[in-house]
Amino acid sequence: MAAKTLKFIVTGNSESPSKLMMSVRDFSFAIDEPESLGGTNAGPNPVELVLSSLAGCINVVVHMVAAERNVNIRGLRLTVEGDLDPSRLMGSPTEERPGFSAIALTAEIDSDASAEEIDEILRIAETRCPVKDNLNNPTPITLRCAPVMHPALA
Amino acid sequence: MAAKTLKFIVTGNSESPSKLMMSVRDFSFAIDEPESLGGTNAGPNPVELVLSSLAGCINVVVHMVAAERNVNIRGLRLTVEGDLDPSRLMGSPTEERPGFSAIALTAEIDSDASAEEIDEILRIAETRCPVKDNLNNPTPITLRCAPVMHPALA
Repeated sequence: MAAKTLKFIVTGNSESPSKLMMSVRDFSFAIDEPESLGGTNAGPNPVELVLSSLAGCINVVVHMVAAERNVNIRGLRLTVEGDLDPSRLMGSPTEERPGFSAIALTAEIDSDASAEEIDEILRIAETRCPVKDNLNNPTPITLRCAPVMHPALA
Repeated sequence: MAAKTLKFIVTGNSESPSKLMMSVRDFSFAIDEPESLGGTNAGPNPVELVLSSLAGCINVVVHMVAAERNVNIRGLRLTVEGDLDPSRLMGSPTEERPGFSAIALTAEIDSDASAEEIDEILRIAETRCPVKDNLNNPTPITLRCAPVMHPALA
């Protein structure tokens, strides 16, 4: 059976230059910058959310692959780190890219499976993880300005 | 002045095959899948968070670039959409990538600036946006399994 393409849509309303209130289905949450980066610290910042989304996706896919192989996972803890040079973001002349130069994910897995089996599960999971794919490989992004202002913004 | 590299770290503890409880500095939040995708719907899902992080980042950078150009932005609403074929995620044979094939961001901006000025702000903002860079361009990601289980997982 061919899988059906899924469409995901999120909306954010800006409450300040740093704070965006997100609406995602029935969920609302704030994205903000910490005070050290000029924000009001009402929530995690955008780049922390990127790292979080990778962790959330790996959790799903690791469990999916483990279940397919009849491996029981009792516990899983994921740590994701990234280094970012803010020069380009700030408008300073630089050769550095604006985003993370590299991302490292560490998985602590509590399971009776062998280290080789766990490595194999991780190896398969990373080839099937949507978020890892979108970060690892180029994804086309179009930005457009809507021609008509939304009445709620007037 | 050279900007200092910033390090960001997030940690997630798996509470189920679909649900990850994130710890990001002082913030805690759940990532989960909706019931339609096999989860318990305790929060937005990983791919919705990716789209949200792009919106959060564009909010920050658009305001930053506008301020540099002395343009006042009274309101900003961002909608981000992405289409995803779940075949590879599910382990089905496919030529499709696991992640979003494309992402579209629409900005509704309330400002007295001309349409040309707003377009120019968006154009500059997208070249400086960390999250857009990490999605648009390849980012190296390393996954490793920690050799020792964390005591909290035992």
